[in-house]
Amino acid sequence: MQYPRPLGRLVGELSKLPGIGNKTAQRLAFHVLSLSDQEAGALADSITEAKRSMRYCSVCGNLTDQDPCSICSNEARRRDVICVVENPQDVMAMERIKEYDGQYHVLNGVISPMDGIGPEDINLRQLIVRLQEHSEIKEVILATNPNIEGEATAMYIARLLKPSGIRVTRIAHGLPVGGDLEYADEVTLLKAMEGRKEL
Amino acid sequence: MQYPRPLGRLVGELSKLPGIGNKTAQRLAFHVLSLSDQEAGALADSITEAKRSMRYCSVCGNLTDQDPCSICSNEARRRDVICVVENPQDVMAMERIKEYDGQYHVLNGVISPMDGIGPEDINLRQLIVRLQEHSEIKEVILATNPNIEGEATAMYIARLLKPSGIRVTRIAHGLPVGGDLEYADEVTLLKAMEGRKEL
Repeated sequence: MQYPRPLGRLVGELSKLPGIGNKTAQRLAFHVLSLSDQEAGALADSITEAKRSMRYCSVCGNLTDQDPCSICSNEARRRDVICVVENPQDVMAMERIKEYDGQYHVLNGVISPMDGIGPEDINLRQLIVRLQEHSEIKEVILATNPNIEGEATAMYIARLLKPSGIRVTRIAHGLPVGGDLEYADEVTLLKAMEGRKEL
Repeated sequence: MQYPRPLGRLVGELSKLPGIGNKTAQRLAFHVLSLSDQEAGALADSITEAKRSMRYCSVCGNLTDQDPCSICSNEARRRDVICVVENPQDVMAMERIKEYDGQYHVLNGVISPMDGIGPEDINLRQLIVRLQEHSEIKEVILATNPNIEGEATAMYIARLLKPSGIRVTRIAHGLPVGGDLEYADEVTLLKAMEGRKEL
């Protein structure tokens, strides 16, 4: 059976979302139809408004509704350290630990020659500019993901910053807390052994 | 960390959808922000348009963008049998088997005293009206779900139609095709035994 056209369009649009298959899209579509006009309007508006008012911070590249973003413009945060992450979600993850209170730099991507993404395709040039303009920055923490692209990107940035003499660090690899040694992959276990610390 | 307000609003709206938790809502929200203006607009519009143009068929209660719906107004379909289902999704499931070519009646709900839903709260009165107005209807197939509420609703309708002399049938219960006898629950197995047929 064909969907009625407006329903088919809605299912089609919803199934374009990541992780939403056709069945889920249909379930969501019927849910939307069961909403009040006001509720459905609020959902549609929130999409339009978020898309309209969210932009990238001109300083750090994070997603924000004000420029510079709330982190860059927060005078209470340390100015001598920058944490480099791949995307805005990583900033949120980092902020959740409530431990780090320095600056961020969001690459909005990762170097991946396989996908044709080079250093010039990510928000990297702006990092160099920041480091040149702000001599108070003493440390750059590379917090890209612990996978091939993330490691390669971290390596690239580390080498790029070497001549500047700024301290460049990489977040630690090891066993996740609550994880199980028996089920850890070899590389993680190797990193955990290499990174062992005196107690 | 607080989301910027428009992003927080989008995550909030998305997490109201069924089966979408906070993490998934965040992932979807960031995906929406990564869309082009046109793509995000299409998504928002499809919600607004579907909500605006979809309504319930005045004859059968199915969701439709035209009234009567495409099934009710299809002259090629049989007029002597009505299949009663709980909701529009069930009509789609039934249509997928491409076997049944009669009419439908969508209850848009199910009798559930526990939730305070009685016979007058579902699209049942209209079924009686249809049966009175169309003497050509010879059979009513009760295809409500095989659970407590669906069975109770089927029983209720069957008793309600008894005096009219119309043939009332219930879809079969048994083992699902491809299922495993070992893992079937007792009630299903019992129904499968009771409903056994001569080969």
